[in-house]
Amino acid sequence: MALVERSLLGPGPSNTYPEATAALAAPLLGHLDPEFLKLLDDTGERLRSVWGTRNLRTLPLSGTGSIGMEAAFVNFVHPGDVVVVAVNGLFGERMCDVASRYGAEVVRVDHDWGEPVDVQRVLDAHPSPALVAAVHAETSTGVRSDIGRLGEALRARGDNTLLLADCVTSIAGEQIDLDAWNVDIAYAGTQKCLGVPPGLAPFTVSERAWERRVEKPTTWYLDLGLIGNYVTGGASGGRAYHHTAPTAMVASLHAALGRVLEEGMPAVAERHRAAGEALQQGLRGMGLELFAPEGNRLHQLTSVWVPEGVDSADVRKQLLTDYGIEIGAGAGPFANSVWRIGLMGNNARLDRVEMLLGALRTILGR
Amino acid sequence: MALVERSLLGPGPSNTYPEATAALAAPLLGHLDPEFLKLLDDTGERLRSVWGTRNLRTLPLSGTGSIGMEAAFVNFVHPGDVVVVAVNGLFGERMCDVASRYGAEVVRVDHDWGEPVDVQRVLDAHPSPALVAAVHAETSTGVRSDIGRLGEALRARGDNTLLLADCVTSIAGEQIDLDAWNVDIAYAGTQKCLGVPPGLAPFTVSERAWERRVEKPTTWYLDLGLIGNYVTGGASGGRAYHHTAPTAMVASLHAALGRVLEEGMPAVAERHRAAGEALQQGLRGMGLELFAPEGNRLHQLTSVWVPEGVDSADVRKQLLTDYGIEIGAGAGPFANSVWRIGLMGNNARLDRVEMLLGALRTILGR
Repeated sequence: MALVERSLLGPGPSNTYPEATAALAAPLLGHLDPEFLKLLDDTGERLRSVWGTRNLRTLPLSGTGSIGMEAAFVNFVHPGDVVVVAVNGLFGERMCDVASRYGAEVVRVDHDWGEPVDVQRVLDAHPSPALVAAVHAETSTGVRSDIGRLGEALRARGDNTLLLADCVTSIAGEQIDLDAWNVDIAYAGTQKCLGVPPGLAPFTVSERAWERRVEKPTTWYLDLGLIGNYVTGGASGGRAYHHTAPTAMVASLHAALGRVLEEGMPAVAERHRAAGEALQQGLRGMGLELFAPEGNRLHQLTSVWVPEGVDSADVRKQLLTDYGIEIGAGAGPFANSVWRIGLMGNNARLDRVEMLLGALRTILGR
Repeated sequence: MALVERSLLGPGPSNTYPEATAALAAPLLGHLDPEFLKLLDDTGERLRSVWGTRNLRTLPLSGTGSIGMEAAFVNFVHPGDVVVVAVNGLFGERMCDVASRYGAEVVRVDHDWGEPVDVQRVLDAHPSPALVAAVHAETSTGVRSDIGRLGEALRARGDNTLLLADCVTSIAGEQIDLDAWNVDIAYAGTQKCLGVPPGLAPFTVSERAWERRVEKPTTWYLDLGLIGNYVTGGASGGRAYHHTAPTAMVASLHAALGRVLEEGMPAVAERHRAAGEALQQGLRGMGLELFAPEGNRLHQLTSVWVPEGVDSADVRKQLLTDYGIEIGAGAGPFANSVWRIGLMGNNARLDRVEMLLGALRTILGR
C-alpha cells in the first residue's frame, strides 16, 4: 500500500528532522542498558542547553506534551493551593481544568484570545499565590507572552510564588532562558519545533520547586519522586526502575536536539523568524489579515483570518487533497474563522513558505 | 558514532518486528488527518482481534504500559470502592499502590511470588467488591494465572464486580479471549510480545464497565470520557481533539499488529511456545532450575534460578559486553537470585534460543 506523505504545516505535529527519524529506526535499546542511560543523561543535558537552565531535574516524560501540564499540577499543587492562571487561549483554559482537578483554588486572569498575558493583571490577581502559570507561546492563537517580565515581577515582589511556563510551541523555535526568566517549572512537547514525532514531554523543575513538591501525588505514573529515582538516581545514588522508558522516542529526541544544537539555537531561532516573517508578509500580500497582534506574533505559528466569503474547511480540504499540505483550523471560538499555519522545526524553511503561499494563491484565486 | 546493537532478551523491551520499525520511519501523519484516523480505527480493530473482544472502546493510550494500569484505576475506582487485588508479584503489588492513590479500599490477596493466582482465595477475600484485579502474565516471576477461571467464578457469583486484567506480557504472545473470560477492563504494553518499542498502552473496556466509569476523574490526560470523544467520537458522532496522539508510535503498533494477524494468533502463540520450551529444556539441560512452577510457566518469559556460587550481575554484564545480549535480573526480593529471559515477539525464535544457550554455556562453563 502506498504511503501517504504530508507537509505538516498545522499547529503540530510537524515534519521531523531527518536525524530524528533515523534515530527512531536505529536498533532499540533497553531502558536499563548503560548505553541508553548515557543517552538519557545526554538528552537531559541537551534539553538544559535549549531551555537555558541548569536544573538537575530536566528530563523527557513518557507521554505527549499534555502530560507535562498534568505532571506540573499533580506534583506541585497541594490541595487548597491558590494557583493563578493567565488564560489567553486554549492551553491556559486547559490549565485551569487540570489544576482544579488536583484541588487547586484556581484564580483565572482572563484575557481576550489573541492578547498576550498582561503581567500587571496577573500580579494583581492575588497577593501571594502558591503558583502562577502562563503559556509562553499560545498554540491556539499564535501569540507570545513575555515570561521573563512575569518572572522578574514575581521575584521583585519577594514572595515564594512558583512560576510555571508552558513551552510546548516555543521550545527549540526561539530563544528561551528559563533560569534568567525565573521560571521554576516548564514543560514542552516534541512534535513542534523540536522536529520529533509526538510522544514525549520535556520537563524541568528548579530546586526550590522540587523542595515543595507533593510527597505522594495521586498519580503513580507521573510521580516525579519515583521518576527521579530512575532519571537522576535516588538518595543512594543508584537508579531504580520505575516504568519502561520509551527508548526509541528518547533516542529520536536526543538526535533532534543534537541537530538543533549543532546548528546553534541563535541560528535556529533566526531560521524560524525568517520563515515566519516571509510567510506573514506573503499572506498580507494576498490581502489576508493576521490574527495575532504585531509585536506578540509568533514566527513558528501564524494565525490568520479566513477571508470573507471563503469556507475555511473547504480550503483546508483542498490543500490536503490536492497538495498534501495540512494546515490547522482555528481553535475554540475561531474554529471556522482562523487558520493556523506552522513553520516549525524542519519546516521552518523558505521552500515550505513558497509552497504554501503558491497553493493558497491558486486556491483563493489571489 | 557507531550504533549499539542488542539482542533484547530481558523482560522487555524486546527487539521489534521489522514492520514496526519501518512504520516508525514512514512519513509522519497529523493526529487529525483522515488517513491517520483510519489507521487509528484499524488499530482498534486489530487490537480487538488479538485480544478476543468486541469492546467498542479499544484503543492505544499515549504512554507506556504502566499508564494503562493508571488509566484503569483512575477511571473506574470511585473513592471508597472495595478493590480486591491478587498480588503474586511486582505488578500486583503496584496495582495496590495505584488503586489506593485513587481512594480505593484495597483488599490484598497475597500469594508467594511465583505462585499463580488462587481463584478461591480471591473470591473469599470479599463478598461483593467493585473491582477485582489480577495480572495475567506476571513479568516479575514468569507465571501465568487463569483469568478465564477467575472471570467465570465472579460471574457465577452473580454480583456486579468488574474484572480487570493486566495483559502487558501476554498480549500477542499467547491466546487471549477477554470476552469469553468475562474481563471488563484490560491494558497492555507494546514493547513485549507485540514487538513495538515502548510508548503505548493498548486498553480496552466493556460496556458495563464504561457505564460505571468516574464521570470526571482527577486526571485530565487519562480521562477516558474525553479521550473517547477523539477515538470513538462524541455524543454527536464527531471526533473532538483531546491531546496530540503519538502518531508515529500508533503507526508502528498498527504495522506490528498487521504482522501478527497475518501470521495468525494461533501460529504466533505456537511460535512463542516452541521457543520458550526449547529455552527451558536447554536451561535444564545445563543443570539450571526454573523458578516458575510447571503448568503455570510462561513461554514468552522464563524465570530461572541463578546457580549456586555464580554472581548474577557478572554474568549479565558479560552477556551484554561480549555478546550484546541483554537478559533481566530478577525482580524485588529475587534481584540477585533469579534471571528473567524473554523470547517475545520477534525474538520468539529458535535462533535466539541457540544464541543465548550457547553464550550462557560458555560463560558458565557448562
